[in-house]
Amino acid sequence: GREMAAWARAVRGLLLDVSGVLYDSGGDGGVPIAGSVEAVRRIKASGLKLQFCTNETQATREGFVKKLQGMGFDISVAEVTAPAPAACRILKERNLRPHLLVHNDLVPEFAEIDKTNPNCVVIGDAAENFTYGNLNEAFRVLIGMEKPVLISLGKGRYYKETDGLKLDVGAYMKALEYACDVQAEVVGKPAKTFFEAALAEMGVAPQQAIMIGDDIVNDVGGAQQCGMRALQVRTGKYRPCDEKHPHVKPDAYVNNLAEAVDIILQQL
Amino acid sequence: GREMAAWARAVRGLLLDVSGVLYDSGGDGGVPIAGSVEAVRRIKASGLKLQFCTNETQATREGFVKKLQGMGFDISVAEVTAPAPAACRILKERNLRPHLLVHNDLVPEFAEIDKTNPNCVVIGDAAENFTYGNLNEAFRVLIGMEKPVLISLGKGRYYKETDGLKLDVGAYMKALEYACDVQAEVVGKPAKTFFEAALAEMGVAPQQAIMIGDDIVNDVGGAQQCGMRALQVRTGKYRPCDEKHPHVKPDAYVNNLAEAVDIILQQL
Repeated sequence: GREMAAWARAVRGLLLDVSGVLYDSGGDGGVPIAGSVEAVRRIKASGLKLQFCTNETQATREGFVKKLQGMGFDISVAEVTAPAPAACRILKERNLRPHLLVHNDLVPEFAEIDKTNPNCVVIGDAAENFTYGNLNEAFRVLIGMEKPVLISLGKGRYYKETDGLKLDVGAYMKALEYACDVQAEVVGKPAKTFFEAALAEMGVAPQQAIMIGDDIVNDVGGAQQCGMRALQVRTGKYRPCDEKHPHVKPDAYVNNLAEAVDIILQQL
Repeated sequence: GREMAAWARAVRGLLLDVSGVLYDSGGDGGVPIAGSVEAVRRIKASGLKLQFCTNETQATREGFVKKLQGMGFDISVAEVTAPAPAACRILKERNLRPHLLVHNDLVPEFAEIDKTNPNCVVIGDAAENFTYGNLNEAFRVLIGMEKPVLISLGKGRYYKETDGLKLDVGAYMKALEYACDVQAEVVGKPAKTFFEAALAEMGVAPQQAIMIGDDIVNDVGGAQQCGMRALQVRTGKYRPCDEKHPHVKPDAYVNNLAEAVDIILQQL
Protein backbone atom coordinates (compact mmCIF):
# COMPACT_ATOMS: atom_id res chain seq x y z
CA GLY A 1 0.00 0.00 0.00
CA ARG A 2 1.02 3.63 -0.29
CA GLU A 3 1.62 4.02 3.43
CA MET A 4 4.57 1.64 2.91
CA ALA A 5 6.43 4.04 0.56
CA ALA A 6 9.58 4.48 2.62
CA TRP A 7 11.29 6.04 -0.38
CA ALA A 8 8.93 9.02 -0.14
CA ARG A 9 9.91 10.11 3.38
CA ALA A 10 11.86 13.20 4.49
CA VAL A 11 11.66 14.96 1.14
CA ARG A 12 12.33 18.68 0.81
CA GLY A 13 12.71 19.08 -2.92
CA LEU A 14 11.86 17.45 -6.25
CA LEU A 15 13.81 17.47 -9.49
CA LEU A 16 11.60 16.79 -12.49
CA ASP A 17 12.70 15.68 -15.90
CA VAL A 18 10.46 17.37 -18.47
CA SER A 19 10.16 15.48 -21.76
CA GLY A 20 8.42 12.16 -21.09
CA VAL A 21 7.38 13.26 -17.58
CA LEU A 22 5.50 16.53 -18.08
CA TYR A 23 4.74 16.09 -21.77
CA ASP A 24 5.53 14.09 -24.89
CA SER A 25 7.35 16.25 -27.43
CA GLY A 26 6.55 16.18 -31.11
CA GLY A 27 6.57 18.09 -34.36
CA ASP A 28 3.27 19.67 -33.36
CA GLY A 29 4.84 21.00 -30.14
CA GLY A 30 3.79 18.01 -28.10
CA VAL A 31 1.02 17.07 -25.67
CA PRO A 32 0.90 17.11 -21.85
CA ILE A 33 0.93 13.73 -20.11
CA ALA A 34 -2.37 13.18 -18.28
CA GLY A 35 -2.33 14.60 -14.75
CA SER A 36 1.05 16.34 -15.05
CA VAL A 37 -0.17 19.95 -15.23
CA GLU A 38 -2.14 19.44 -12.02
CA ALA A 39 0.75 17.51 -10.41
CA VAL A 40 3.14 20.47 -10.88
CA ARG A 41 0.55 22.80 -9.31
CA ARG A 42 0.16 20.47 -6.34
CA ILE A 43 3.95 20.30 -5.78
CA LYS A 44 4.13 24.09 -5.70
CA ALA A 45 1.14 24.36 -3.36
CA SER A 46 2.73 21.80 -1.01
CA GLY A 47 5.71 23.99 -0.18
CA LEU A 48 8.21 21.46 -1.58
CA LYS A 49 11.11 22.99 -3.49
CA LEU A 50 10.95 22.26 -7.20
CA GLN A 51 13.45 22.46 -10.07
CA PHE A 52 13.04 21.21 -13.62
CA CYS A 53 16.15 19.35 -14.72
CA THR A 54 16.14 18.75 -18.45
CA ASN A 55 18.54 17.77 -21.21
CA GLU A 56 16.35 19.62 -23.70
CA THR A 57 18.52 21.34 -26.31
CA GLN A 58 16.09 21.95 -29.16
CA ALA A 59 15.21 25.42 -27.88
CA THR A 60 16.41 28.18 -25.58
CA ARG A 61 15.12 27.96 -22.04
CA GLU A 62 12.87 30.93 -22.84
CA GLY A 63 11.33 29.17 -25.84
CA PHE A 64 11.03 25.89 -23.98
CA VAL A 65 9.30 27.49 -20.98
CA LYS A 66 6.91 29.42 -23.22
CA LYS A 67 5.88 26.16 -24.93
CA LEU A 68 5.23 24.48 -21.57
CA GLN A 69 3.31 27.49 -20.24
CA GLY A 70 1.19 27.24 -23.38
CA MET A 71 0.25 23.70 -22.34
CA GLY A 72 -0.81 24.99 -18.91
CA PHE A 73 2.32 24.23 -16.85
CA ASP A 74 3.28 26.58 -14.01
CA ILE A 75 6.98 26.96 -14.88
CA SER A 76 9.48 29.82 -15.21
CA VAL A 77 12.95 30.14 -16.75
CA ALA A 78 14.69 30.38 -13.36
CA GLU A 79 13.23 27.00 -12.39
CA VAL A 80 14.87 25.24 -15.36
CA THR A 81 18.36 23.69 -15.26
CA ALA A 82 19.44 22.96 -18.85
CA PRO A 83 22.69 21.98 -20.59
CA ALA A 84 23.29 24.99 -22.85
CA PRO A 85 23.72 27.61 -20.09
CA ALA A 86 25.94 25.14 -18.21
CA ALA A 87 28.04 24.66 -21.36
CA CYS A 88 28.39 28.43 -21.80
CA ARG A 89 29.89 28.71 -18.32
CA ILE A 90 32.46 26.03 -19.21
CA LEU A 91 33.29 27.64 -22.56
CA LYS A 92 33.95 30.98 -20.86
CA GLU A 93 36.02 29.46 -18.04
CA ARG A 94 38.28 27.60 -20.45
CA ASN A 95 38.44 30.15 -23.27
CA LEU A 96 36.85 27.67 -25.66
CA ARG A 97 35.41 28.92 -28.94
CA PRO A 98 32.82 26.41 -30.17
CA HIS A 99 31.86 25.14 -33.56
CA LEU A 100 28.15 24.50 -32.92
CA LEU A 101 26.29 21.42 -34.14
CA VAL A 102 22.97 22.22 -32.49
CA HIS A 103 19.34 22.94 -33.26
CA ASN A 104 18.76 26.34 -34.90
CA ASP A 105 16.48 27.34 -32.02
CA LEU A 106 19.26 26.76 -29.47
CA VAL A 107 21.81 29.07 -31.15
CA PRO A 108 20.67 32.22 -29.22
CA GLU A 109 21.87 30.59 -25.96
CA PHE A 110 25.40 31.01 -27.35
CA ALA A 111 24.92 34.64 -28.46
CA GLU A 112 27.61 36.00 -26.15
CA ILE A 113 30.17 33.29 -26.89
CA ASP A 114 33.04 33.92 -29.31
CA LYS A 115 32.67 31.41 -32.12
CA THR A 116 35.49 32.59 -34.41
CA ASN A 117 38.35 30.21 -35.20
CA PRO A 118 36.83 27.29 -33.23
CA ASN A 119 38.93 25.25 -30.80
CA CYS A 120 36.16 22.84 -29.77
CA VAL A 121 32.90 21.33 -31.02
CA VAL A 122 29.64 21.56 -29.06
CA ILE A 123 27.01 19.02 -30.07
CA GLY A 124 23.36 19.09 -28.96
CA ASP A 125 20.16 17.45 -30.11
CA ALA A 126 20.38 19.06 -33.55
CA ALA A 127 17.53 16.92 -34.99
CA GLU A 128 17.07 17.89 -38.66
CA ASN A 129 20.43 19.69 -38.48
CA PHE A 130 22.07 16.26 -38.19
CA THR A 131 22.65 16.19 -41.92
CA TYR A 132 25.50 14.23 -43.50
CA GLY A 133 27.13 17.53 -44.40
CA ASN A 134 26.85 19.07 -40.92
CA LEU A 135 28.13 15.98 -39.13
CA ASN A 136 31.04 15.82 -41.55
CA GLU A 137 31.83 19.49 -40.96
CA ALA A 138 31.94 18.98 -37.18
CA PHE A 139 34.15 15.92 -37.76
CA ARG A 140 36.60 17.92 -39.87
CA VAL A 141 36.86 20.66 -37.24
CA LEU A 142 37.65 18.03 -34.59
CA ILE A 143 40.07 15.90 -36.59
CA GLY A 144 41.96 19.06 -37.52
CA MET A 145 42.77 19.79 -33.86
CA GLU A 146 45.91 18.54 -32.17
CA LYS A 147 43.82 17.59 -29.12
CA PRO A 148 40.16 17.43 -30.16
CA VAL A 149 37.70 18.83 -27.58
CA LEU A 150 34.12 17.60 -27.95
CA ILE A 151 31.44 18.87 -25.56
CA SER A 152 28.11 17.03 -25.72
CA LEU A 153 24.87 18.47 -24.35
CA GLY A 154 23.65 15.21 -22.84
CA LYS A 155 24.31 11.67 -24.04
CA GLY A 156 20.78 10.26 -24.34
CA ARG A 157 20.31 7.33 -26.70
CA TYR A 158 16.81 8.23 -27.88
CA TYR A 159 13.61 9.91 -26.77
CA LYS A 160 9.97 9.51 -27.56
CA GLU A 161 8.05 11.99 -29.64
CA THR A 162 4.35 11.85 -30.40
CA ASP A 163 5.11 10.03 -33.67
CA GLY A 164 7.65 7.56 -32.28
CA LEU A 165 11.20 7.17 -30.98
CA LYS A 166 13.94 9.54 -32.18
CA LEU A 167 17.71 9.25 -32.00
CA ASP A 168 19.11 11.60 -29.37
CA VAL A 169 22.41 13.50 -29.23
CA GLY A 170 24.27 10.55 -27.63
CA ALA A 171 24.17 8.55 -30.84
CA TYR A 172 25.81 11.35 -32.82
CA MET A 173 28.24 12.00 -29.99
CA LYS A 174 29.36 8.36 -30.28
CA ALA A 175 29.82 8.74 -34.04
CA LEU A 176 32.19 11.68 -33.55
CA GLU A 177 33.95 10.04 -30.60
CA TYR A 178 34.71 6.99 -32.74
CA ALA A 179 35.70 8.91 -35.86
CA CYS A 180 38.10 11.17 -33.95
CA ASP A 181 39.20 8.74 -31.23
CA VAL A 182 38.19 11.17 -28.46
CA GLN A 183 35.96 11.02 -25.42
CA ALA A 184 33.28 13.68 -25.22
CA GLU A 185 32.77 15.77 -22.09
CA VAL A 186 29.09 15.47 -21.25
CA VAL A 187 27.28 18.56 -19.95
CA GLY A 188 23.77 17.80 -18.68
CA LYS A 189 22.37 14.67 -17.11
CA PRO A 190 23.88 12.27 -16.00
CA ALA A 191 26.85 14.51 -15.11
CA LYS A 192 27.14 14.90 -11.33
CA THR A 193 27.95 18.62 -11.56
CA PHE A 194 24.72 19.19 -13.47
CA PHE A 195 22.51 17.56 -10.81
CA GLU A 196 24.48 19.44 -8.15
CA ALA A 197 23.78 22.76 -9.88
CA ALA A 198 20.05 21.95 -9.92
CA LEU A 199 20.11 21.03 -6.21
CA ALA A 200 21.99 24.25 -5.42
CA GLU A 201 19.22 26.27 -7.13
CA MET A 202 16.76 24.72 -4.65
CA GLY A 203 19.10 24.86 -1.66
CA VAL A 204 18.35 21.20 -0.94
CA ALA A 205 20.82 18.43 -0.07
CA PRO A 206 20.84 15.33 -2.29
CA GLN A 207 19.57 13.15 0.57
CA GLN A 208 16.47 15.34 0.80
CA ALA A 209 15.66 15.30 -2.91
CA ILE A 210 13.94 12.94 -5.34
CA MET A 211 14.57 12.95 -9.08
CA ILE A 212 11.65 11.84 -11.25
CA GLY A 213 12.41 10.88 -14.85
CA ASP A 214 11.70 8.48 -17.70
CA ASP A 215 15.35 7.68 -18.54
CA ILE A 216 16.74 4.78 -16.53
CA VAL A 217 20.38 5.77 -17.09
CA ASN A 218 20.47 9.55 -17.42
CA ASP A 219 17.74 10.43 -14.90
CA VAL A 220 17.63 7.55 -12.44
CA GLY A 221 21.24 6.35 -12.54
CA GLY A 222 22.68 9.85 -12.66
CA ALA A 223 20.63 11.13 -9.72
CA GLN A 224 21.41 8.08 -7.59
CA GLN A 225 25.15 8.53 -8.28
CA CYS A 226 24.66 11.97 -6.79
CA GLY A 227 23.16 10.61 -3.56
CA MET A 228 19.53 11.36 -4.46
CA ARG A 229 16.59 9.01 -4.58
CA ALA A 230 15.16 8.52 -8.07
CA LEU A 231 11.87 7.29 -9.53
CA GLN A 232 11.24 6.05 -13.04
CA VAL A 233 7.86 6.93 -14.52
CA ARG A 234 6.21 4.51 -16.92
CA THR A 235 5.57 7.33 -19.42
CA GLY A 236 7.70 8.87 -22.17
CA LYS A 237 10.53 6.66 -23.40
CA TYR A 238 9.99 4.11 -20.61
CA ARG A 239 10.08 0.52 -21.90
CA PRO A 240 9.27 -2.60 -19.85
CA CYS A 241 12.79 -3.95 -20.47
CA ASP A 242 14.14 -0.96 -18.48
CA GLU A 243 12.98 -2.85 -15.38
CA LYS A 244 15.62 -5.49 -16.13
CA HIS A 245 18.45 -2.97 -16.46
CA PRO A 246 21.70 -4.69 -15.41
CA HIS A 247 23.13 -1.77 -13.40
CA VAL A 248 20.42 0.70 -12.42
CA LYS A 249 17.42 0.12 -10.17
CA PRO A 250 15.14 3.05 -9.30
CA ASP A 251 14.01 3.56 -5.71
CA ALA A 252 10.51 3.00 -7.09
CA TYR A 253 8.50 2.81 -10.28
CA VAL A 254 5.41 4.98 -10.68
CA ASN A 255 2.92 4.91 -13.50
CA ASN A 256 3.26 8.64 -14.05
CA LEU A 257 4.14 11.93 -12.37
CA ALA A 258 0.66 12.33 -10.88
CA GLU A 259 0.99 9.03 -9.03
CA ALA A 260 4.45 9.96 -7.72
CA VAL A 261 3.13 13.28 -6.41
CA ASP A 262 0.13 11.57 -4.77
CA ILE A 263 2.43 9.30 -2.79
CA ILE A 264 5.02 11.95 -1.90
CA LEU A 265 2.43 14.48 -0.71
CA GLN A 266 0.78 11.84 1.52
CA GLN A 267 4.07 11.49 3.39
CA LEU A 268 4.55 15.22 4.14
CA GLY B 1 68.81 0.15 -48.76
CA ARG B 2 66.20 -1.83 -50.65
CA GLU B 3 68.22 -5.01 -50.62
CA MET B 4 67.56 -5.07 -46.86
CA ALA B 5 63.76 -5.42 -47.26
CA ALA B 6 63.34 -8.76 -45.52
CA TRP B 7 59.60 -8.16 -45.37
CA ALA B 8 59.42 -8.43 -49.17
CA ARG B 9 60.77 -11.99 -49.43
CA ALA B 10 58.91 -15.19 -50.39
CA VAL B 11 55.82 -13.44 -51.70
CA ARG B 12 53.32 -15.19 -53.95
CA GLY B 13 50.37 -12.82 -53.84
CA LEU B 14 49.38 -9.25 -53.11
CA LEU B 15 46.14 -7.90 -51.68
CA LEU B 16 45.60 -4.26 -52.57
CA ASP B 17 43.26 -1.84 -50.88
CA VAL B 18 41.80 0.45 -53.54
CA SER B 19 40.68 3.85 -52.23
CA GLY B 20 43.75 5.73 -51.01
CA VAL B 21 46.12 3.23 -52.65
CA LEU B 22 45.07 3.11 -56.30
CA TYR B 23 43.16 6.41 -56.36
CA ASP B 24 41.67 9.15 -54.23
CA SER B 25 37.88 9.09 -54.47
CA GLY B 26 35.81 12.22 -54.82
CA GLY B 27 32.59 13.73 -56.09
CA ASP B 28 34.17 14.02 -59.53
CA GLY B 29 34.87 10.26 -59.57
CA GLY B 30 38.35 10.65 -58.16
CA VAL B 31 41.92 10.73 -59.44
CA PRO B 32 44.57 7.99 -59.72
CA ILE B 33 47.49 8.21 -57.28
CA ALA B 34 50.73 8.84 -59.19
CA GLY B 35 52.39 5.61 -60.34
CA SER B 36 49.54 3.30 -59.31
CA VAL B 37 48.18 2.46 -62.79
CA GLU B 38 51.65 1.37 -63.85
CA ALA B 39 52.25 -0.46 -60.54
CA VAL B 40 49.16 -2.68 -61.07
CA ARG B 41 50.39 -3.50 -64.59
CA ARG B 42 53.82 -4.43 -63.26
CA ILE B 43 52.32 -6.74 -60.60
CA LYS B 44 50.31 -8.57 -63.25
CA ALA B 45 53.32 -8.86 -65.57
CA SER B 46 55.43 -10.27 -62.71
CA GLY B 47 53.33 -13.39 -62.30
CA LEU B 48 52.38 -12.54 -58.70
CA LYS B 49 48.79 -13.33 -57.76
CA LEU B 50 46.69 -10.21 -57.21
CA GLN B 51 43.36 -9.50 -55.55
CA PHE B 52 41.78 -6.14 -54.78
CA CYS B 53 40.40 -6.12 -51.25
CA THR B 54 38.16 -3.13 -50.68
CA ASN B 55 35.54 -1.92 -48.22
CA GLU B 56 34.02 0.22 -50.98
CA THR B 57 30.24 0.23 -50.66
CA GLN B 58 29.23 3.30 -52.63
CA ALA B 59 28.76 1.28 -55.83
CA THR B 60 28.27 -2.24 -57.13
CA ARG B 61 31.47 -4.07 -57.98
CA GLU B 62 30.55 -3.62 -61.65
CA GLY B 63 30.21 0.14 -61.28
CA PHE B 64 33.34 0.39 -59.17
CA VAL B 65 35.45 -1.61 -61.64
CA LYS B 66 34.16 0.42 -64.57
CA LYS B 67 35.21 3.64 -62.84
CA LEU B 68 38.70 2.28 -62.17
CA GLN B 69 39.06 0.98 -65.72
CA GLY B 70 38.14 4.48 -66.86
CA MET B 71 41.17 5.77 -64.96
CA GLY B 72 43.39 3.25 -66.76
CA PHE B 73 43.56 0.45 -64.16
CA ASP B 74 43.80 -3.17 -65.34
CA ILE B 75 41.08 -4.62 -63.08
CA SER B 76 38.09 -6.95 -63.45
CA VAL B 77 35.07 -7.77 -61.26
CA ALA B 78 36.37 -11.25 -60.37
CA GLU B 79 39.53 -9.70 -58.93
CA VAL B 80 37.57 -7.61 -56.42
CA THR B 81 36.63 -8.80 -52.91
CA ALA B 82 34.01 -6.41 -51.52
CA PRO B 83 31.64 -6.40 -48.51
CA ALA B 84 28.24 -6.39 -50.21
CA PRO B 85 28.55 -9.80 -51.94
CA ALA B 86 29.96 -11.22 -48.69
CA ALA B 87 26.98 -9.80 -46.80
CA CYS B 88 24.55 -11.32 -49.28
CA ARG B 89 26.01 -14.77 -48.61
CA ILE B 90 25.46 -14.26 -44.86
CA LEU B 91 21.91 -12.96 -45.33
CA LYS B 92 20.99 -16.04 -47.39
CA GLU B 93 22.65 -18.48 -44.98
CA ARG B 94 20.80 -17.06 -41.99
CA ASN B 95 17.46 -16.23 -43.63
CA LEU B 96 17.93 -12.55 -42.82
CA ARG B 97 15.78 -9.95 -44.58
CA PRO B 98 17.59 -6.61 -44.46
CA HIS B 99 16.43 -3.07 -44.06
CA LEU B 100 19.12 -1.33 -46.15
CA LEU B 101 20.84 1.89 -45.11
CA VAL B 102 23.28 2.04 -48.03
CA HIS B 103 24.25 4.17 -51.00
CA ASN B 104 21.67 4.16 -53.81
CA ASP B 105 24.30 2.79 -56.21
CA LEU B 106 24.88 -0.26 -53.98
CA VAL B 107 21.24 -1.38 -53.88
CA PRO B 108 21.50 -3.58 -57.02
CA GLU B 109 23.96 -5.87 -55.15
CA PHE B 110 20.96 -6.88 -52.99
CA ALA B 111 18.58 -7.43 -55.93
CA GLU B 112 18.05 -11.12 -55.17
CA ILE B 113 17.63 -10.68 -51.42
CA ASP B 114 14.16 -10.70 -49.83
CA LYS B 115 13.76 -7.33 -48.13
CA THR B 116 10.14 -7.63 -46.99
CA ASN B 117 9.33 -7.50 -43.26
CA PRO B 118 12.97 -6.84 -42.24
CA ASN B 119 14.61 -8.79 -39.43
CA CYS B 120 17.99 -7.05 -39.59
CA VAL B 121 19.62 -3.78 -40.67
CA VAL B 122 22.51 -3.62 -43.13
CA ILE B 123 24.50 -0.39 -43.03
CA GLY B 124 27.10 0.66 -45.61
CA ASP B 125 28.82 3.88 -46.56
CA ALA B 126 25.53 5.57 -47.44
CA ALA B 127 27.12 9.05 -47.76
CA GLU B 128 24.36 11.54 -48.65
CA ASN B 129 21.81 8.87 -47.68
CA PHE B 130 22.95 9.33 -44.07
CA THR B 131 20.13 11.79 -43.47
CA TYR B 132 18.59 12.34 -40.05
CA GLY B 133 15.43 10.68 -41.31
CA ASN B 134 17.14 7.62 -42.76
CA LEU B 135 19.30 7.01 -39.69
CA ASN B 136 16.22 7.34 -37.51
CA GLU B 137 14.33 4.87 -39.68
CA ALA B 138 17.11 2.28 -39.37
CA PHE B 139 17.15 2.92 -35.60
CA ARG B 140 13.41 2.29 -35.31
CA VAL B 141 13.66 -0.98 -37.23
CA LEU B 142 16.42 -2.16 -34.88
CA ILE B 143 14.90 -0.99 -31.60
CA GLY B 144 11.66 -2.70 -32.57
CA MET B 145 13.37 -6.13 -32.70
CA GLU B 146 13.54 -8.41 -29.72
CA LYS B 147 17.20 -9.15 -30.56
CA PRO B 148 18.46 -6.42 -32.90
CA VAL B 149 20.77 -7.66 -35.70
CA LEU B 150 23.00 -4.99 -37.22
CA ILE B 151 25.36 -5.90 -40.08
CA SER B 152 27.92 -3.26 -41.00
CA LEU B 153 29.78 -3.22 -44.31
CA GLY B 154 33.13 -2.23 -42.81
CA LYS B 155 33.81 -0.13 -39.74
CA GLY B 156 36.15 2.54 -41.10
CA ARG B 157 36.29 5.81 -39.18
CA TYR B 158 36.84 8.08 -42.17
CA TYR B 159 38.38 8.20 -45.62
CA LYS B 160 39.93 10.83 -47.79
CA GLU B 161 38.22 12.25 -50.83
CA THR B 162 39.68 14.79 -53.20
CA ASP B 163 38.00 17.59 -51.23
CA GLY B 164 38.92 16.36 -47.75
CA LEU B 165 38.19 13.73 -45.10
CA LYS B 166 34.72 12.14 -44.92
CA LEU B 167 33.03 10.16 -42.15
CA ASP B 168 32.90 6.48 -43.01
CA VAL B 169 30.30 3.83 -42.16
CA GLY B 170 31.96 3.01 -38.82
CA ALA B 171 30.86 6.30 -37.28
CA TYR B 172 27.22 5.65 -38.14
CA MET B 173 27.54 2.02 -37.07
CA LYS B 174 28.66 3.27 -33.63
CA ALA B 175 25.66 5.62 -33.45
CA LEU B 176 23.24 2.73 -34.00
CA GLU B 177 25.20 0.39 -31.71
CA TYR B 178 24.92 2.91 -28.89
CA ALA B 179 21.29 3.83 -29.50
CA CYS B 180 20.17 0.18 -29.59
CA ASP B 181 22.73 -1.28 -27.17
CA VAL B 182 23.88 -3.86 -29.73
CA GLN B 183 27.18 -4.87 -31.26
CA ALA B 184 27.32 -4.81 -35.04
CA GLU B 185 28.63 -7.76 -37.04
CA VAL B 186 31.27 -6.33 -39.36
CA VAL B 187 31.48 -7.72 -42.90
CA GLY B 188 34.56 -6.49 -44.79
CA LYS B 189 37.97 -5.52 -43.50
CA PRO B 190 39.18 -6.05 -40.77
CA ALA B 191 37.09 -9.24 -40.41
CA LYS B 192 39.32 -12.31 -40.66
CA THR B 193 36.81 -14.22 -42.82
CA PHE B 194 36.89 -11.41 -45.34
CA PHE B 195 40.68 -11.49 -45.78
CA GLU B 196 40.52 -15.28 -45.92
CA ALA B 197 37.98 -15.13 -48.74
CA ALA B 198 40.30 -12.81 -50.70
CA LEU B 199 43.27 -15.15 -50.12
CA ALA B 200 41.16 -18.12 -51.23
CA GLU B 201 40.40 -16.33 -54.51
CA MET B 202 44.16 -16.18 -55.14
CA GLY B 203 44.91 -19.64 -53.77
CA VAL B 204 47.70 -18.17 -51.64
CA ALA B 205 48.45 -18.85 -47.96
CA PRO B 206 48.52 -15.84 -45.60
CA GLN B 207 52.26 -16.32 -44.96
CA GLN B 208 52.89 -15.84 -48.68
CA ALA B 209 50.80 -12.70 -49.08
CA ILE B 210 51.26 -8.99 -48.43
CA MET B 211 48.37 -6.57 -47.86
CA ILE B 212 48.96 -2.98 -48.96
CA GLY B 213 46.62 -0.32 -47.60
CA ASP B 214 46.29 3.19 -46.23
CA ASP B 215 44.24 2.27 -43.11
CA ILE B 216 46.39 1.36 -40.12
CA VAL B 217 43.61 -0.55 -38.35
CA ASN B 218 41.38 -2.04 -41.04
CA ASP B 219 44.05 -2.85 -43.65
CA VAL B 220 47.28 -3.32 -41.70
CA GLY B 221 45.96 -4.57 -38.36
CA GLY B 222 43.32 -6.79 -39.95
CA ALA B 223 45.73 -8.45 -42.38
CA GLN B 224 48.35 -9.05 -39.70
CA GLN B 225 45.72 -10.69 -37.45
CA CYS B 226 45.20 -13.05 -40.36
CA GLY B 227 48.89 -14.03 -40.51
CA MET B 228 49.76 -11.83 -43.50
CA ARG B 229 52.40 -9.17 -43.78
CA ALA B 230 51.04 -5.66 -44.27
CA LEU B 231 52.37 -2.33 -45.54
CA GLN B 232 50.95 1.09 -44.93
CA VAL B 233 51.24 3.54 -47.82
CA ARG B 234 51.70 7.24 -47.09
CA THR B 235 48.88 8.14 -49.48
CA GLY B 236 45.09 8.36 -49.05
CA LYS B 237 43.92 8.78 -45.48
CA TYR B 238 47.43 8.16 -44.08
CA ARG B 239 48.36 10.64 -41.34
CA PRO B 240 51.80 10.94 -39.70
CA CYS B 241 50.25 10.18 -36.28
CA ASP B 242 49.36 6.70 -37.63
CA GLU B 243 53.06 5.86 -37.16
CA LYS B 244 52.54 6.22 -33.39
CA HIS B 245 49.54 3.87 -33.28
CA PRO B 246 49.47 2.18 -29.87
CA HIS B 247 48.59 -1.33 -31.11
CA VAL B 248 49.40 -1.73 -34.80
CA LYS B 249 52.78 -1.56 -36.51
CA PRO B 250 53.03 -2.32 -40.22
CA ASP B 251 55.81 -4.58 -41.51
CA ALA B 252 56.98 -1.52 -43.42
CA TYR B 253 55.91 1.95 -44.53
CA VAL B 254 56.14 2.89 -48.19
CA ASN B 255 55.53 6.28 -49.74
CA ASN B 256 53.06 4.83 -52.23
CA LEU B 257 52.04 1.69 -54.09
CA ALA B 258 54.66 2.23 -56.81
CA GLU B 259 57.46 2.17 -54.22
CA ALA B 260 56.08 -0.99 -52.61
CA VAL B 261 55.94 -2.73 -55.98
CA ASP B 262 59.50 -1.62 -56.84
CA ILE B 263 60.83 -3.25 -53.68
CA ILE B 264 58.73 -6.42 -53.91
CA LEU B 265 59.58 -7.09 -57.56
CA GLN B 266 63.31 -6.69 -56.83
CA GLN B 267 63.05 -9.61 -54.40
CA LEU B 268 61.40 -12.05 -56.84
